[in-house]
Amino acid sequence: MRSNESLLDVFLELQVLDRIPRSGYVLRGVADPESVTEHSWHVLFMVWVLGERLPGLDRARAVELALVHDLAELRVGDLPRTAGRYFPEGAKKAAEAAALAEILAPLPERAQRLHAEYQEGATLEARLVKACDKLQLMLKVAVYESWGSGALAEFWDNPDNFPAPGIPPVDQLFADLAARCGKRRPPS
Amino acid sequence: MRSNESLLDVFLELQVLDRIPRSGYVLRGVADPESVTEHSWHVLFMVWVLGERLPGLDRARAVELALVHDLAELRVGDLPRTAGRYFPEGAKKAAEAAALAEILAPLPERAQRLHAEYQEGATLEARLVKACDKLQLMLKVAVYESWGSGALAEFWDNPDNFPAPGIPPVDQLFADLAARCGKRRPPS
Amino acid sequence: MRSNESLLDVFLELQVLDRIPRSGYVLRGVADPESVTEHSWHVLFMVWVLGERLPGLDRARAVELALVHDLAELRVGDLPRTAGRYFPEGAKKAAEAAALAEILAPLPERAQRLHAEYQEGATLEARLVKACDKLQLMLKVAVYESWGSGALAEFWDNPDNFPAPGIPPVDQLFADLAARCGKRRPPS
Amino acid sequence: MRSNESLLDVFLELQVLDRIPRSGYVLRGVADPESVTEHSWHVLFMVWVLGERLPGLDRARAVELALVHDLAELRVGDLPRTAGRYFPEGAKKAAEAAALAEILAPLPERAQRLHAEYQEGATLEARLVKACDKLQLMLKVAVYESWGSGALAEFWDNPDNFPAPGIPPVDQLFADLAARCGKRRPPS
Amino acid sequence: MRSNESLLDVFLELQVLDRIPRSGYVLRGVADPESVTEHSWHVLFMVWVLGERLPGLDRARAVELALVHDLAELRVGDLPRTAGRYFPEGAKKAAEAAALAEILAPLPERAQRLHAEYQEGATLEARLVKACDKLQLMLKVAVYESWGSGALAEFWDNPDNFPAPGIPPVDQLFADLAARCGKRRPPS
Amino acid sequence: MRSNESLLDVFLELQVLDRIPRSGYVLRGVADPESVTEHSWHVLFMVWVLGERLPGLDRARAVELALVHDLAELRVGDLPRTAGRYFPEGAKKAAEAAALAEILAPLPERAQRLHAEYQEGATLEARLVKACDKLQLMLKVAVYESWGSGALAEFWDNPDNFPAPGIPPVDQLFADLAARCGKRRPPS
Repeated sequence: MRSNESLLDVFLELQVLDRIPRSGYVLRGVADPESVTEHSWHVLFMVWVLGERLPGLDRARAVELALVHDLAELRVGDLPRTAGRYFPEGAKKAAEAAALAEILAPLPERAQRLHAEYQEGATLEARLVKACDKLQLMLKVAVYESWGSGALAEFWDNPDNFPAPGIPPVDQLFADLAARCGKRRPPS
Repeated sequence: MRSNESLLDVFLELQVLDRIPRSGYVLRGVADPESVTEHSWHVLFMVWVLGERLPGLDRARAVELALVHDLAELRVGDLPRTAGRYFPEGAKKAAEAAALAEILAPLPERAQRLHAEYQEGATLEARLVKACDKLQLMLKVAVYESWGSGALAEFWDNPDNFPAPGIPPVDQLFADLAARCGKRRPPS
Repeated sequence: MRSNESLLDVFLELQVLDRIPRSGYVLRGVADPESVTEHSWHVLFMVWVLGERLPGLDRARAVELALVHDLAELRVGDLPRTAGRYFPEGAKKAAEAAALAEILAPLPERAQRLHAEYQEGATLEARLVKACDKLQLMLKVAVYESWGSGALAEFWDNPDNFPAPGIPPVDQLFADLAARCGKRRPPS
Repeated sequence: MRSNESLLDVFLELQVLDRIPRSGYVLRGVADPESVTEHSWHVLFMVWVLGERLPGLDRARAVELALVHDLAELRVGDLPRTAGRYFPEGAKKAAEAAALAEILAPLPERAQRLHAEYQEGATLEARLVKACDKLQLMLKVAVYESWGSGALAEFWDNPDNFPAPGIPPVDQLFADLAARCGKRRPPS
Repeated sequence: MRSNESLLDVFLELQVLDRIPRSGYVLRGVADPESVTEHSWHVLFMVWVLGERLPGLDRARAVELALVHDLAELRVGDLPRTAGRYFPEGAKKAAEAAALAEILAPLPERAQRLHAEYQEGATLEARLVKACDKLQLMLKVAVYESWGSGALAEFWDNPDNFPAPGIPPVDQLFADLAARCGKRRPPS
Repeated sequence: MRSNESLLDVFLELQVLDRIPRSGYVLRGVADPESVTEHSWHVLFMVWVLGERLPGLDRARAVELALVHDLAELRVGDLPRTAGRYFPEGAKKAAEAAALAEILAPLPERAQRLHAEYQEGATLEARLVKACDKLQLMLKVAVYESWGSGALAEFWDNPDNFPAPGIPPVDQLFADLAARCGKRRPPS
């Protein structure tokens, strides 16, 4: 499998993203866990909703960042978090950028620039998407815990899951979620 | 379950959309079929990609239409197509609008106006989303057929699945897909 | 899909009922939930067993009522309970009656009369089946809770799930079940 | 686990029958195969429908036979057909009778007499249920084959799956099914 | 299905072992439970690791015993524990030996001798494999309990699940596991 | 998650290997695909059987190689084949070796030496295991194709799946399998 040649190729390959379960849940015993596609939709929806409350944000671009942020997992896989410790620094990021370029080859270069912006995480838009990426993780953890599904307590203890981007509505949602679940955000 | 009161309520309830399988596939024997969330993501991605090729289209609004177009299924269910014959004219549309209003109660009225625009289907943006809704259906059918999963032939025979919206890049994709699968679009 | 023309058509279509999961469990995170067919079998078995203890009951007819009580979901879907709030009064009942007539077209009109009797719920036989429909729901909730599967507590709080039909062996079973699970029946 | 002591015990234990997949399908690669409960419901429905067309049949008793015919699999398991070759003659039947007696202990002895009648297979009612047990098997095989699910061709070649009970409506259905699937009944 | 004739037949038939779920978990509501193949791999791995710590043990033969210990379930099924009460004494053992002989027909008689040694359970090697068979059961129970999956408490109360073979590293692991889970081994 | 400290830690962590589906099947639409554990068991069984036919082979060590060959996927994931193109040369091998060392930390260094021997692939034992790794892949592909499950044709066209190790019984099995499936081995 090399670079996609037509939009039809792209759209067809992307259908398979639905079959990639999020590895963090798989490895902790969640039955029938969320797919990468499902995760992506929720992040996107949250970015869209929250974007309206953030003056100065380019909401349309933030939505686009969310749209492309996890596509590369189609070819690189949704590596378990532990994998990061065993690969050379930066190898995963480079692999994802290369995979994305081939998956989205027929698309204007815009998609790749968006992906790079997301990876760098410097702009407000990228920071919002990255924060929502974690917020959605913790929302799903809360839902799975209410369903009695999986051993997920350690997610609440990991400061990486509670980024502190200084974006007030996101900060508030993290606080509200922890309160509703009777949890405390870990010290970062 | 009444109207959601906070954004946190909205985001949590929406997580459950991942557990609603698309009924058309369920009833035709597809194993582990697409969820409503997955369908929605793909429609949205296609709208985003194709929107760039459509001069005069408000791409950001088209993306928003895609974002809300199926949310009501959370509370109304993904009714099988046959159900439409047994309910009074318009009952399903009215039910979806009412459900959406309660699901998205904490959101500005914009979400409901978008949903109404989608249901009416009059604007170019709504027509694009509706066409992509069917295009994604047929893409997934093609994927499932390549996987040997489900009895899906009748989808190719139903003219409703091949809308003729006069939007060139969409028309082209329908034609390309049918050609690649060795099928012919049914006469509308 | 229109009216079935032969018994063979009926029997084949009904096989698909096995793939329709009960929506109340799906939406509350039960993994691999009961199908409509499974629910129907249990209701029927309970009606058969309890029917023997009810003097004056036409047990054979009660069994028949149980047999047809949920078939229409094949074409109407197993709508989530919330859907009832968004459809016009009576629309669901009318849709189910119409769907049943088409599903069971080759059968003598008896099937439709049974279904109507069930929907009206006036006879002792219909009241027994309706009570067992809920009793089976709560039995399954108890089983799923013992398995740690799903967020089902709200079922115990809904008086609709504990009908008070004045049929002593059913009343007793509701009481025994609640006692065994350490629950209290909600005030009706 | 010994004999059930109350009806509540019986009803609760029976819920688990939904988790026992039919082994014949499991071993031939059908994804998400029918449960024993689902099989039982379909047999029962067919017996009810066909019973009306059989003068001289005690339809209510035939329905009862169908109701109990596979319950013992709760404790004995749904043994693969091959298992029959490795157990002593009659061991499976005896085990099922013993298991049924304990599962249904709180029920009047009627249930056990029905089960014995089914196992003996001498009465018209028992012959009808046994024939429907196989007819339902082949109906499901036809459905799974239409879905592209599993390697099921050998079922069509096994004369045991096409009993010749001389019950005209059943014989007709076997013939119609084979014709519709383009198959030939194996010589018995 | 009779005796396999070639190694290719053996290897192909064994692939199906992956679809046989362990019945003890199925019947207690574990979602997506372990297959017989998975159980076998873990037993084998533990025997290999522990074998090194047991002076006088023929480690290679112990590994071989583990390799064949559950293969017969391919044709006999993974009978629920309750089934043992309803079959004649020794019937299950005899059935498994007969099935194994046919499954592994193209293999040198060694395989059957190993299986007999395992069933007799007299040698140190067989006793180690039998102890690991239970140790793995309880490890998996502990994992499923940590995941909130299934009603498994009774496993901790059954002395049969805690054999006392006098093999120090195994005894230690049983003790460590119980301690970690806050359980007490039942008196044997 | 760092290095395991006790054997109990190792055995518990390894249970999770059962939840890691083989990515090649997932991405090609196989329903309920083989886990890494299941794959490993089959490779091991084949190595054991074939090892007996190979004079000069250290069969016990070959079995050990098979036992450890895929364990690292617990922490690195079962990366899709495409991932190999996007990571630096050798990164995956290095990651797997590092992960294995931590997973099996309480085991004597033997396990790590075995893993290194497998990765180098120079000895007869390692070559046998590597060949069986692919042979099992193609056996499963053949089984899934007979079940109508997944789009797997491309596996037959990839020479990497048909290694030519010059080990006669393995070569013969590849030839027999291709013949039985009506396929031709691709030119290497």
